[in-house]
Amino acid sequence: MTAPLRLGIAGLGTVGVGVVKIVRSHKALLTARTGREIVITAVGARDQGKDRGVNLNGYAWESDPVALARRDDIDVFVELMGGSDGPALEATRAALDTGKDVVTANKAMLALHGQALAEQAEDAGRAIRFEAAVAGGIPVIKALTEGLAGNEITRVMGVMNGTCNYILTRMESAGLPYDAVFQEASDLGYLEADPTLDVGGIDAGHKLALLSAIAFGTRPDFDGVDLEGIQRIAIDDIRQAADMGFRIKLLGVARRTGRGLEQRMQPCLVPADSPLGQLEGGTNMVVVEGDAVEQIVLRGPGAGQGPTASAVMGDICDLARGIRVPTFGRPAHTLEAAPAALSGLPAPYYLRMSLMDKPGALAKIAAILGNSGISIDRMRQYGHSEATAPVLIVTHKTTRAALDEAIAAMTGTDVMASLPVALRIEQV
Amino acid sequence: MTAPLRLGIAGLGTVGVGVVKIVRSHKALLTARTGREIVITAVGARDQGKDRGVNLNGYAWESDPVALARRDDIDVFVELMGGSDGPALEATRAALDTGKDVVTANKAMLALHGQALAEQAEDAGRAIRFEAAVAGGIPVIKALTEGLAGNEITRVMGVMNGTCNYILTRMESAGLPYDAVFQEASDLGYLEADPTLDVGGIDAGHKLALLSAIAFGTRPDFDGVDLEGIQRIAIDDIRQAADMGFRIKLLGVARRTGRGLEQRMQPCLVPADSPLGQLEGGTNMVVVEGDAVEQIVLRGPGAGQGPTASAVMGDICDLARGIRVPTFGRPAHTLEAAPAALSGLPAPYYLRMSLMDKPGALAKIAAILGNSGISIDRMRQYGHSEATAPVLIVTHKTTRAALDEAIAAMTGTDVMASLPVALRIEQV
Repeated sequence: MTAPLRLGIAGLGTVGVGVVKIVRSHKALLTARTGREIVITAVGARDQGKDRGVNLNGYAWESDPVALARRDDIDVFVELMGGSDGPALEATRAALDTGKDVVTANKAMLALHGQALAEQAEDAGRAIRFEAAVAGGIPVIKALTEGLAGNEITRVMGVMNGTCNYILTRMESAGLPYDAVFQEASDLGYLEADPTLDVGGIDAGHKLALLSAIAFGTRPDFDGVDLEGIQRIAIDDIRQAADMGFRIKLLGVARRTGRGLEQRMQPCLVPADSPLGQLEGGTNMVVVEGDAVEQIVLRGPGAGQGPTASAVMGDICDLARGIRVPTFGRPAHTLEAAPAALSGLPAPYYLRMSLMDKPGALAKIAAILGNSGISIDRMRQYGHSEATAPVLIVTHKTTRAALDEAIAAMTGTDVMASLPVALRIEQV
Repeated sequence: MTAPLRLGIAGLGTVGVGVVKIVRSHKALLTARTGREIVITAVGARDQGKDRGVNLNGYAWESDPVALARRDDIDVFVELMGGSDGPALEATRAALDTGKDVVTANKAMLALHGQALAEQAEDAGRAIRFEAAVAGGIPVIKALTEGLAGNEITRVMGVMNGTCNYILTRMESAGLPYDAVFQEASDLGYLEADPTLDVGGIDAGHKLALLSAIAFGTRPDFDGVDLEGIQRIAIDDIRQAADMGFRIKLLGVARRTGRGLEQRMQPCLVPADSPLGQLEGGTNMVVVEGDAVEQIVLRGPGAGQGPTASAVMGDICDLARGIRVPTFGRPAHTLEAAPAALSGLPAPYYLRMSLMDKPGALAKIAAILGNSGISIDRMRQYGHSEATAPVLIVTHKTTRAALDEAIAAMTGTDVMASLPVALRIEQV
C-alpha cells in the first residue's frame, strides 16, 4: 500500500471539525476506497483551548497557519479559515511554495486570487481543489470540470446562497416582509457577520465566478459579475410573480456571448414549475447546459457541517487516489481574459413601481418605455387607497441597457413615487 | 505534450456516432482540457456501407470487434455495441487482455459480468469506465465514486428508465390507459427491441445493480434486484395516487440493511412535491444519500445521442488526464458478496383490488389484513355499476413479506375479482 496521505487542517470551525470527524469515523472506508490511509498530522485555529466536541490530542497544534502550511510532515494543506486575503491567502501560498497540495472551501480567496494561485500551483506542480467552495455538498466542480469535459458549456446557472433562498421562500410561505424575514434569518444564525455578503449577492457571486472560469476557460473574474442583491424584493413582487406563474430567485447566470463573458448574480423570475422555481429553503441548485448533454440539474445542501465536509473529503480522496486536474480545468496560463459583457442578452423584464396618483402618470411611463424601444407585454395598475398607485409592467424582450435608459428617464419625471424594481425573467 | 490518446470505437449506432462527432468537433477544446490530443484510430460496426452522417474515412475499419479491441494502435477500447454477452463481452475481455482501457455504455454486460471484468481489469492494471451505462448524461458514477467518497452511503434511489417515466407521466397527463401509451411509445421508437427490458424494469435494474456496487462496496448483483415492471399500473392507480398527493414512478432503491443488501426496482408512490415526484417525461433522476452530505439530487436526460456521448466523453477525458479509479470505487477483490435482503424495510403500501359485489366481501379482506398484522390507514370502496367493486387500501407500515402473505390469503377467498396491485409508498 502507498504511504498515508497526511493532512494539515487550518481552521477548526464547523467545516474543519466536520472534516476531522469524517477522517476519524471513516478510517477503514476511506482506505478501502482510496487505497491509502488518510491521516491528520497537524491542526490549527485561533483558540486552542476551545472545546470543539472532537478529540484533537493526537495531532500537532499550530496556531500560525503559515507555519502549519510549511510543515514538512503534511502532504495536503486543508484551508478552512476563510477570508479572501490575510492568513488564508498567505498560508495557501506558503503551502504551494513548500510543495503541498491545497484543498480549500474559500470561495472569496479563489474568486479574487484564483488566477495567481492556480499559476503558482501549476509552476510548483501542485493541485488546488475547491469543491466545498461552491454549492456546499453538491459535487458540481467535479461534474463541470471532469464529468462534462466533453461539452462546450453553453450556460451555467445556480441558486447558490441558501440564506437568500431561505429568505425569499420564507417571505412567500409566511407572507412576511423582507425586513422581518431578514431578522429571523439573523436570529437563526443564517447570516454572515457582514450580511451584505449574503443578501447583496457577493458570496453567490464569488461562486459564480469560479464556475464561469471552469465552464468557459476564462480567468476567474469576480469584478466582471453584475451583482444585485435581494434587499429591494418586496412581498408584493413575490405575489405578483406567483400570479404570473413565476418565482423569484437570487439566480447566477453565466454564458459566453459574442461580446464577452456574461456573469450575472441577481434576483430573477423563473418559471414556478421548473426545477429552479421549485427550490425551497436553504437548498442549492446548479444547472449546467452543454452542447451535448443538454441540461443537467444538481441539487443539494449548500451549507452545513456534514455537506461541506463531504465536499472537502471528496477532494482529499481524489488527491489520495492520485487524481490531479488543473485548478480551473485547463492550464492556468491558457485561461482567457474575456471582457465582461455586463448587460446580458435581451430578456423580458418585470417592473414594479409606485406612481403619483395624478392624471396622465401611467401614460407618461408607457411613453418613456416606447421611446426606449421597449414594448409592453402586460401592464396592471392596482386599486389603492394611498396617494401613490402600484403599477406592474411585464415587458417583451429588451436589453438591460435600454431598460436602464428608460428607468433613468422615468426618474426624471414628476410621477414616480419611488425607484422601480426591475427583475429579469430568465428562460430556464 | 503527452502522446495522443487513441480510441477504437466498436459500435456506430446513435451513441457511437455521437462520440465521433464530439471528438471531431471539439478537437481543440478536448486538448486544452486534457492536455492531450484525443484521436480515433479505428472504428467498426456490423454494416460498413451504411451512411451514418459522419465522415469515417480517416479511421481504420474493423468489422470484428475482437480484432478492433486487439489492435496495437489503440489505447482505449470504446464498447458501444450493447448486449450482455456475445461480441461485446468477448471484445471487452480481449481489450483488457491486450492492455487497453475500456469505456463502455453497456449496463447489461456490467450488471451480469462486472465482477469478473473488474477483476480482469485490475489484474491487467487497466481501467473500465461506464458513466454512460447509468442515467445517460448525468455524471452520477463520478459523483458517487469520487465526489461523495467521504460518505458512508445510506441510500441510493433513481428513476433511470426514461421510457417508463414517459409512459407513466403521459398516462397521467393524457388520461390514457397503459396499453394506449405503450403503443405510442412503441410508435415513437422509445422502446427496446424487447420492450420487457424497459417496462419490466430490467434495464433500470441493471443500472441499480451498478450503483449499489459502488455505493455499498458490494459485488454487482443483478440477480439480487427485486424486479417489478409497470405493466399492471392502471390509470386508476395514477389518479388515486394523485388524489392522495403521490405520483407513481418506476423507482430503484438500494440500501444496506442488517439483513443484507436491499435492491428494489419497482413502481412506487412518492410524494408529488418531491424532486422525484415532480420528474416529467423521459428525464432521469438519481438521489444519493450519505451520512455527511445528506441528500444530493441529480437530474438530466437519460438517453439520446448527445447526452450519452457526453458521458462516454467524460470517461475518455478522465483517461486522457490520467484519472484512474477502480471500476466500482474500490479494488474488485475487496467487494463484498452481500446477501440479498429481498423484502426490504417496512413501508406503507397502496393496494388496489376488485372485489366481487357480495355481502361481507370487504370485511373478509379487512380481516385477512388484520390476521397478517397489517393495519389499515385508509380504505375506500368506489361507486360502481359492474358486478365488481373497486377498493383502495393504504396500509400503515408493514413488510412486503406480511403483505404477500395477506395477498395469498385473499386470493384463497371467493371475493377477489382480480389479483391486487400492491405498490410501496417510498419516503423520499
